[in-house]
Amino acid sequence: LDALHAACPHVTWSTEFSPGQTFDAAVVANPPPGTLTGLKGLRLIQSLWAGVDRVLQDETLPADVPLARMVDPAMTAAMAETALWAVLSLHRGFFDYTAQQRQTQWHQHPQRRAEEVSVLVLGHGVMGQAVSSRLAAQGYSVTAWRRGEPPGLALQEAHAASSPGAVCTLSGGAGLTAALPRAQILINLLPLTMQTLGILGAATLSRLPRGASVVNFGRGGHLVEADLAQALDAGHLKHAVLDVFAQEPLPADHPFWRHPKITVLPHVAALTDLVSAAAVVADNLDRLARGLPLRHLVDRHQGY
Amino acid sequence: LDALHAACPHVTWSTEFSPGQTFDAAVVANPPPGTLTGLKGLRLIQSLWAGVDRVLQDETLPADVPLARMVDPAMTAAMAETALWAVLSLHRGFFDYTAQQRQTQWHQHPQRRAEEVSVLVLGHGVMGQAVSSRLAAQGYSVTAWRRGEPPGLALQEAHAASSPGAVCTLSGGAGLTAALPRAQILINLLPLTMQTLGILGAATLSRLPRGASVVNFGRGGHLVEADLAQALDAGHLKHAVLDVFAQEPLPADHPFWRHPKITVLPHVAALTDLVSAAAVVADNLDRLARGLPLRHLVDRHQGY
Repeated sequence: LDALHAACPHVTWSTEFSPGQTFDAAVVANPPPGTLTGLKGLRLIQSLWAGVDRVLQDETLPADVPLARMVDPAMTAAMAETALWAVLSLHRGFFDYTAQQRQTQWHQHPQRRAEEVSVLVLGHGVMGQAVSSRLAAQGYSVTAWRRGEPPGLALQEAHAASSPGAVCTLSGGAGLTAALPRAQILINLLPLTMQTLGILGAATLSRLPRGASVVNFGRGGHLVEADLAQALDAGHLKHAVLDVFAQEPLPADHPFWRHPKITVLPHVAALTDLVSAAAVVADNLDRLARGLPLRHLVDRHQGY
Repeated sequence: LDALHAACPHVTWSTEFSPGQTFDAAVVANPPPGTLTGLKGLRLIQSLWAGVDRVLQDETLPADVPLARMVDPAMTAAMAETALWAVLSLHRGFFDYTAQQRQTQWHQHPQRRAEEVSVLVLGHGVMGQAVSSRLAAQGYSVTAWRRGEPPGLALQEAHAASSPGAVCTLSGGAGLTAALPRAQILINLLPLTMQTLGILGAATLSRLPRGASVVNFGRGGHLVEADLAQALDAGHLKHAVLDVFAQEPLPADHPFWRHPKITVLPHVAALTDLVSAAAVVADNLDRLARGLPLRHLVDRHQGY
């Protein structure tokens, strides 16, 4: 709230409200279902979260009010950093060396060059593009996959964003089928929708080559946890880096905490940056006041 | 040897030899002292190691034969990757999250932007420059320090190499004194010489700000292990990432293996890449045969 006050000094903020009150906009961070019911005058619901899957589960969400998601440049940069850390860790064996330290084991593994490592990035929105281009700039062989066929303009933007490293882009079911067998590291950055729910299940994981690793920075619902565990335990997959889970916080008795081939992060791959997120909110509120097009609007049918 | 054969098909290689035999060049990887004694005709000693501190300890090394060290582009890239991994891990708290996983602890730490993190790189040779420029390109605030005053040409080269991110370069004792209090992460990439032996001791470590971290990718001799342990245990320093040690392999009973604030790597920050290193050797042998200037020659007085 302090950050929002600072970014929008002319806006009046309320954290207490009741049905029947009038507001121009609601800024929300996954409130309980029904929170906005009965509010009048709403012309914008601005999410503070990049993924709107949870807020869209609220069936009472006013259907006719534009919903915007958070696209925070600092959060995007944080995601690119975490993806780069995960890829460097997998590529250069740093998870193995961490395990070796616990076993007092001095052992050197062969060193590969970045260009010998193929990374498949699922999702080609703002975060997917930032991750793909950052990895390509480090020399990795990057393929970016988007579920739907891109409209012409979006494709041009994607290509511009992925320079200087060359990113191969694929789309659709056929594209995924072609990309999976070549991917040594798969990074999921898809939005969670009915179409992507459970996409990281046995059908997808079994198409990865033996020894591949999986990084899930999307949502817990993308991953079929039992299928991942089986692929790791069978030796088909080498390692998994998980930031998101079906239940968060991850329950203390969940086997992933103690799985030697799983790195657990407590949903920190990319946190909203207070200052830059408040500036994004301020921009949309200013657009609302001036009647300009709102930014980062969600297509509720698509779910992102 | 296979890689050298492939890179230099016209060269005759011997792995067995005795005093009195004649060779144009010796390719060495820290052989026992006296190994080259009595060989005739030597016009080049080519090290396969980037650091020549160990080979220079051999007092019987022919004094009048040019000594070249290994400057392998793949090894340089590997060092930049490992430094980036260490900085990302320290900046984004991934060592902390790894420890939390072992304790089944779900806890998010505040997220800082890369530009809020100041990194001091000691050493501004080929590897130091590669590390500095790679980190600056990721948005980190990078200061590079070299021990001696740079000659004019080298300074220009350094500036060219450190684009696109801006790297502040400092030199000499006064430069180090100025840089240390501002460094949140210190990375050592100096060559080991009589002037840099023990440079990571109490005098240097105590000038770092409270909460700083230390990364030693140089040589074990740069670090005064007891001083580091004391600074970590007193809470002055937060974490250390060590790839090199006074004794390697690190003895099984060494306390660093089990120190919660020390990440131990088994000297893998940058391995020589067989193929690209063989190409570097081939180039110098070709230059020797054609009477051209040899590359990467060591100033034995400077020690690197």
